[in-house]
Amino acid sequence: MTQDLLSERILSTPPSFIRSILKTASDPEIISFAGGLPNPISFPQKELAQSAQRIVERYGSKVFQYSITAGLEELRDEIARRYNALYGLDLRAEHVLITTGSQQALDLIGKALLNAGDGVILEKPSYLGAIQAFSQYGPQFYSVELTDEGMDPEGLRQTLARHTAKVMYAIPNFQNPTGLTYTADNRARIRDVLRQYPDLVLVEDDPYGELRFDGAPLPYIGAGELGNSILLGSFSKTITPGMRLGYLITQNTELLRYISIAKEATDLHTNVYAQYLILDYLQNNDYQAHMDRIKALYRDQAQTMLQAMAEYFPADVRYTRPHGGMFIWATLPHGVSAMQLFPRALQKKVAFVPGDPFYIGQKDVNTMRLNYTNADSETIREGIRRLGDLLRGLSGARGSGATSGAVDKPDRAR
Amino acid sequence: MTQDLLSERILSTPPSFIRSILKTASDPEIISFAGGLPNPISFPQKELAQSAQRIVERYGSKVFQYSITAGLEELRDEIARRYNALYGLDLRAEHVLITTGSQQALDLIGKALLNAGDGVILEKPSYLGAIQAFSQYGPQFYSVELTDEGMDPEGLRQTLARHTAKVMYAIPNFQNPTGLTYTADNRARIRDVLRQYPDLVLVEDDPYGELRFDGAPLPYIGAGELGNSILLGSFSKTITPGMRLGYLITQNTELLRYISIAKEATDLHTNVYAQYLILDYLQNNDYQAHMDRIKALYRDQAQTMLQAMAEYFPADVRYTRPHGGMFIWATLPHGVSAMQLFPRALQKKVAFVPGDPFYIGQKDVNTMRLNYTNADSETIREGIRRLGDLLRGLSGARGSGATSGAVDKPDRAR
Repeated sequence: MTQDLLSERILSTPPSFIRSILKTASDPEIISFAGGLPNPISFPQKELAQSAQRIVERYGSKVFQYSITAGLEELRDEIARRYNALYGLDLRAEHVLITTGSQQALDLIGKALLNAGDGVILEKPSYLGAIQAFSQYGPQFYSVELTDEGMDPEGLRQTLARHTAKVMYAIPNFQNPTGLTYTADNRARIRDVLRQYPDLVLVEDDPYGELRFDGAPLPYIGAGELGNSILLGSFSKTITPGMRLGYLITQNTELLRYISIAKEATDLHTNVYAQYLILDYLQNNDYQAHMDRIKALYRDQAQTMLQAMAEYFPADVRYTRPHGGMFIWATLPHGVSAMQLFPRALQKKVAFVPGDPFYIGQKDVNTMRLNYTNADSETIREGIRRLGDLLRGLSGARGSGATSGAVDKPDRAR
Repeated sequence: MTQDLLSERILSTPPSFIRSILKTASDPEIISFAGGLPNPISFPQKELAQSAQRIVERYGSKVFQYSITAGLEELRDEIARRYNALYGLDLRAEHVLITTGSQQALDLIGKALLNAGDGVILEKPSYLGAIQAFSQYGPQFYSVELTDEGMDPEGLRQTLARHTAKVMYAIPNFQNPTGLTYTADNRARIRDVLRQYPDLVLVEDDPYGELRFDGAPLPYIGAGELGNSILLGSFSKTITPGMRLGYLITQNTELLRYISIAKEATDLHTNVYAQYLILDYLQNNDYQAHMDRIKALYRDQAQTMLQAMAEYFPADVRYTRPHGGMFIWATLPHGVSAMQLFPRALQKKVAFVPGDPFYIGQKDVNTMRLNYTNADSETIREGIRRLGDLLRGLSGARGSGATSGAVDKPDRAR
């Protein structure tokens, strides 16, 4: 009966597979590589507790009162200055909207831009939270293959020649789910294609960019280059996700005005106490030293997982070697369904995310996402060992060791 | 050019008049009766700062990590128990969804329920934030007259006989914008009408219920009575609005499941640090004593404003006398446009909200909303004096005093 009450929109919005398996995987005995959770030891708890005292002393009732939809000007200014310094952009506070996590930015973009049937270009595979957020607005998705260099420029060109698209969504740094990073050359080629479609809104989602533990940062595709470019960022992976603090950046101020109306109608404004807290944290701590610690931690954890995969996985399993971020993407032998493997892995008390929810309309794919940031080295090795046992049983491969599926070439899907 | 990019949805969503004039009225010299802001002296700053320390000590990294979409179980349990004790309901934690303020609850209801063209019943006038949130989903609004007893039951009956509606939205306690409260008898009559439409979803928005400074609480219309009933609550008016913490309650768990999918796609979950903070505050402080102080404060401020209106407003201005909440609703003589009065009031450094945005498709109405919670007594008297000068100039009435437009009968629109 309730079904009759519901909107078409919500009936076509997939529940998050990750969040439902996170519940399953909340059994403390399960080793979970499923979520995209930061390591809790990376949270600057003591410093945030100090900021919590300081902001009440310094700002008083302002931290508890209603505030403006755009977000705290000082925080927006701080964000603009950081991006200008890091990427040579020319941003001001007025180009920044504080959002309730990056997930809200995706919802607001869908809300402000998408009519039912509008075209949205995605990477194949793409972040399931973005698929979910956009799905609410009934778009037509077009997936363009993600290669070890980035999005396939020729595939993008052909897709845009055949179909009308309003939005393109991409994660150029340490992509979710694959861990892949677009090369500098690939970014330039994608930008060249997009210059021919000045009305297309490019959304570059970059929650992991600061988590680069190898190599040098690369320029954005759209930010500072394309007129209808939107850049998304977040404090979730660098300071604390529980605080739900993200931001949306665009120099198209008219576009931003409409996205801000959507924001106002959606939750008035983001928690202002949290905004003061993060602002104070940034102003009173050595953020760079903090990030250096996180990056060293995640580099170790990624290496541990890759080494364990080399040791325990059969040779016919291929996987990416990320330079940052939180994920490794494994490709099982042709015909093996990661989704069917999932319950068997749970029996062995280890969890991952099967690839299916990262694709539009594909089922029983042979890919899986493994998160390495939320477990210590010993746990990572034990979990990968259990997965390896299961995979060797499947493929009938004998042992592994030196003939492992890992490659040295960085940032490549194999 | 940007216009072509936008969704029909956002082009038909009105920006909030209140929030745009709040910017105008941010000049510190302006006496503002425009916003719906709590008095900052009501925020338990010291106690919240203590909770901020305690939660980090007690819960550690959990307050900073990702969390579940439904919200903290202990907080939902606390909310359920309070409503059970106060209203004899039979709620459990599973009936409660924590939202990013009540505004988000409105957005999620629209998102999960409304297809374009679906009918939504509103009070006339209604809360502009709800009009804005629902407008995003392109519904057909039907307004039913609000009388001094509550919503007109006969008007509701006729509207439902003529039109198909999916949702009815009402604020039975200290309504925004009018300050009116539905009588017990009126609630029973509205409930009787709604029993004939079991598929209609009744949304009772109750952010002000706890701010009752005169009389006894009244039972809800739908909560515990009607199957498709949704109740909304908030900590914004009682503890802190800056924290953006509200909740949605329904015993229709299938409906709640879909609303939760919308929540997940919208912002994953509400700030979990804020949830621990409010939970800890409730567990470690005398909440009732805190509420008693706020109610005494707002009773005084409401009386001060009503006395000043009796003294300074011409006799042909009528107004409500609320028993709680934050607003007084004034009706100017027929033909006087509150919107045209607005810039003239700003010149005299006093702001209010003209009635227009609280109606569907009505302009230059002769009503205005006055907030009394966010100014001290002296400021209230001075602001009302300035408005009175302006109004007397308009209507040509001579003075006022004993022939004031105020009535003693409580809770009535005159």
